[in-house]
Amino acid sequence: MIAGDVYKMESHSVSNIVQRGGTILKSARSKEFMTPEGRKKAYDNLQSLGIEGLIAIGGNGTFTGAMIFGNEYGIPTVGAPGTIDNDLYGTDYTIGFDTAVNTALDAIDRIRDTASSHDRIFFIEVMGRDSGYIAIQSGIAGGAELVMVPEVLTPISQVVDTLKQGWSRSKSSSIIIVAEGDEEGSAQEVADKIKLQVDENADIRVTTLGHTQRGGTPSAYDRILASRLGLGALEGLIAGQKNVMAGIINNELVYTPFEDTIRLPKPINEDLLRMVKILSV
Amino acid sequence: MIAGDVYKMESHSVSNIVQRGGTILKSARSKEFMTPEGRKKAYDNLQSLGIEGLIAIGGNGTFTGAMIFGNEYGIPTVGAPGTIDNDLYGTDYTIGFDTAVNTALDAIDRIRDTASSHDRIFFIEVMGRDSGYIAIQSGIAGGAELVMVPEVLTPISQVVDTLKQGWSRSKSSSIIIVAEGDEEGSAQEVADKIKLQVDENADIRVTTLGHTQRGGTPSAYDRILASRLGLGALEGLIAGQKNVMAGIINNELVYTPFEDTIRLPKPINEDLLRMVKILSV
Amino acid sequence: MIAGDVYKMESHSVSNIVQRGGTILKSARSKEFMTPEGRKKAYDNLQSLGIEGLIAIGGNGTFTGAMIFGNEYGIPTVGAPGTIDNDLYGTDYTIGFDTAVNTALDAIDRIRDTASSHDRIFFIEVMGRDSGYIAIQSGIAGGAELVMVPEVLTPISQVVDTLKQGWSRSKSSSIIIVAEGDEEGSAQEVADKIKLQVDENADIRVTTLGHTQRGGTPSAYDRILASRLGLGALEGLIAGQKNVMAGIINNELVYTPFEDTIRLPKPINEDLLRMVKILSV
Amino acid sequence: MIAGDVYKMESHSVSNIVQRGGTILKSARSKEFMTPEGRKKAYDNLQSLGIEGLIAIGGNGTFTGAMIFGNEYGIPTVGAPGTIDNDLYGTDYTIGFDTAVNTALDAIDRIRDTASSHDRIFFIEVMGRDSGYIAIQSGIAGGAELVMVPEVLTPISQVVDTLKQGWSRSKSSSIIIVAEGDEEGSAQEVADKIKLQVDENADIRVTTLGHTQRGGTPSAYDRILASRLGLGALEGLIAGQKNVMAGIINNELVYTPFEDTIRLPKPINEDLLRMVKILSV
Repeated sequence: MIAGDVYKMESHSVSNIVQRGGTILKSARSKEFMTPEGRKKAYDNLQSLGIEGLIAIGGNGTFTGAMIFGNEYGIPTVGAPGTIDNDLYGTDYTIGFDTAVNTALDAIDRIRDTASSHDRIFFIEVMGRDSGYIAIQSGIAGGAELVMVPEVLTPISQVVDTLKQGWSRSKSSSIIIVAEGDEEGSAQEVADKIKLQVDENADIRVTTLGHTQRGGTPSAYDRILASRLGLGALEGLIAGQKNVMAGIINNELVYTPFEDTIRLPKPINEDLLRMVKILSV
Repeated sequence: MIAGDVYKMESHSVSNIVQRGGTILKSARSKEFMTPEGRKKAYDNLQSLGIEGLIAIGGNGTFTGAMIFGNEYGIPTVGAPGTIDNDLYGTDYTIGFDTAVNTALDAIDRIRDTASSHDRIFFIEVMGRDSGYIAIQSGIAGGAELVMVPEVLTPISQVVDTLKQGWSRSKSSSIIIVAEGDEEGSAQEVADKIKLQVDENADIRVTTLGHTQRGGTPSAYDRILASRLGLGALEGLIAGQKNVMAGIINNELVYTPFEDTIRLPKPINEDLLRMVKILSV
Repeated sequence: MIAGDVYKMESHSVSNIVQRGGTILKSARSKEFMTPEGRKKAYDNLQSLGIEGLIAIGGNGTFTGAMIFGNEYGIPTVGAPGTIDNDLYGTDYTIGFDTAVNTALDAIDRIRDTASSHDRIFFIEVMGRDSGYIAIQSGIAGGAELVMVPEVLTPISQVVDTLKQGWSRSKSSSIIIVAEGDEEGSAQEVADKIKLQVDENADIRVTTLGHTQRGGTPSAYDRILASRLGLGALEGLIAGQKNVMAGIINNELVYTPFEDTIRLPKPINEDLLRMVKILSV
Repeated sequence: MIAGDVYKMESHSVSNIVQRGGTILKSARSKEFMTPEGRKKAYDNLQSLGIEGLIAIGGNGTFTGAMIFGNEYGIPTVGAPGTIDNDLYGTDYTIGFDTAVNTALDAIDRIRDTASSHDRIFFIEVMGRDSGYIAIQSGIAGGAELVMVPEVLTPISQVVDTLKQGWSRSKSSSIIIVAEGDEEGSAQEVADKIKLQVDENADIRVTTLGHTQRGGTPSAYDRILASRLGLGALEGLIAGQKNVMAGIINNELVYTPFEDTIRLPKPINEDLLRMVKILSV
């Protein structure tokens, strides 16, 4: 918008992209848009191009920018929640989350294959700076012994207890999922702390998935969610919605003010957290 | 139950199976259980083993058997919906459906790769004897031009029209998803009918996915759903539920009488059907 | 070449395509190139564009065209073997073959998951009009009971015998791979013939993979092979090679005259065929 | 062997395991076997069980043990090369290598998806304590900008130069593969060193694949290789071979004395190393 780098998209513009990860728009965070001058340029460009509404895809950073821009210039904007962390209030799931969970799960499954042949403790770091959603869902689905998330305190002593209980039941190996934002540090840091507190012969291994979770062919769930939310954002815009995010809650399309999606925390799913404990026994 | 082939499962009995397709129980349809004599044997075995409740995993055939058995002998049974077709009333999704959709989607993606290089009409047959759920979800996610399902009449003439419209917009190739229970027949039969009505040089190809959709590593969604429903079935049984199926509707655990899951049809999702039309333009 | 639809490719022209199936060139079979007039146009275009050499990617059809064109106009051409069937003399493997085998194998694995839970006969049709390479390699890798290929006669009576031997050893289910060019017909036709000769209650299922085998993210093996053969074709052209195909035999780059790749049959690997028999016991 | 934990395997003992990662034997490194007492126990057990030959699956550690045991007690042993690192003299490829390369490649592909949308430097650590095989093959197949391997010195200054050259050609992002045994340290350590030498705003990310490379469904190539080598080991043993490893060189089965596989280094493939440089331009 700031550079006026705009082109019209027809239906054939999106042919054969549905199976690709990443973005064909190549949009990314813009520092210039955070300045009044940048936003002025963007507004002038939209004006001269006759563009009367925006759909913003992203998370809280994106929506904060869109809200400020909307307040300054009155351009109606509807948001679509696109972030793998699933940390947005106003929707059950965000676009990219299901794919990220399956990518993390694939890594857990592969490690589990080797876990059955050797005695080891594996730490796997998944994304989630403020949110344990990926950690919890991939941990349940992968049968992890423990999941460490930012929303819940899991002191090192509790990790050690869990490991020792597993050994006492002669479990051959243990898999612990660490969300990157856990208060005990990264998976490597947690592993280093654990090493000091268990048998020195324990074989401790760390996997850090990093940006692998942000790419890959999107899952069916994500594509259908994206289709519904994209259509919902468009139809909302046409119907006069502005400064709201389109979301799906309990299978229904809902619009939540940007203000709320930005301000309100998304509570962690207590049911799933309870299930981690039950299933890891 | 009839053969008394029973063993006690501990937590380690299910270690390292979470990533596997198929069933470790190797249970399957039993003709003997459809007879009063077979059920009598089953009841006697349960009695002598001190088994006081059952969890039945399956679809309407399974639940019909469970209901009759429950009525005859009073053994409380709670069902967990396990069928890839997602055709059960009483739950938004069934265990196996998400994995089956992703398997069908992978096939569509692969065919789309070749569709971009050659001019062709592809017919892909997916499962769904009475239900178009797999066809519709994989069709939306895969960007199919048309989806043919048992619940909606799609005459051959409409298929031909859709193909001709695509050609007039110079689409290079078309992908049509056919649920196995469509009223126009199998994908091969539909393809044979179409061949007579379009240009004789049209290059028509058929893929029949068959049982590939029933296997494979389960997706994260399916594993979490199975964990929730398995726990729900168990806790329901403990709490005194009987002759009901555990399901998830709008993220809430619900119990629906077997009678209703068997008798009531699951309506097709009209929203998704509308989206197929919008997205295929 | 005929339409003069030519653009210069730089290194960034191929950025981020290495993981994609299909072709970004969108080249395909051309009927016009089979006529002297079509080839004249192609030559005139190459002349006016100053193009002095060609690399042709494909199979025997492609190389036949390239050879005729080279003989008529003297333009040097080096071929790179790109066909999933692996039926080209002059190279151990062709580009696309390893990916196709893995795609077929994934289908076999998924079906095997369900095979362990039910008693069934599965027929899986893989590509190979004149060649059993995909069938044999996926059959060994997937542990199939029998592989039916064009190069070897496998009468229906032998299929029936194999099935009966399996049942007598109480195998629960059987997987039979049928190359599309087998002399007994398609997988569906073989299944129909078998149905008449085994127990009428036998549960027979057919999967036809079709063009799924031509798409999908290429495997590591295929990408490295394509890199070696592409470089080999280019360096051959620069060094003055013409009317030859670049191939890899026993890990060495070799150039084989188009005449031989077209005329000589690629023998089936007898070692692998022997292994199918040993492993299926 | 030491514990006498032995059971007879029939053909059905291996039914439905071909698609699984890991080992059903659950064998692992044994400290006791490194002592004369341990080997004595093993020999006594073999004697009393009437076992006259061994097939040892593994790498140099396994073969060293087998050779010592063979020298002490005369039990003939033939080895099958099973290690993902492909660092064994006497065979072109080892069992597990192709699967590990494809797993690493999948991670590179996923990261590449995000690389196209943002400006970043990605470091991906793959396995290979003494060997750069996985790094080089996945690097070529994934189109990495640079590959750092133990066999070749790649000073940090060269990494910085490569990055700067890429930026000068306006590459949007760079992927660098680091074998775990590289002389500059782990991927994290290399990243930390680079951070000090490039623009402080550079966005540097690290992925450590770890044991994910040791698990997962084996590729077609690996299963066929394992079938050939397993059969080769068995037929070698029957034919009187001892203290040798079965390998495949240029598509031919060869037997190499354990002494040589242990002592001789496997040279890195110079052709592939040259190709990394050509393709990364």
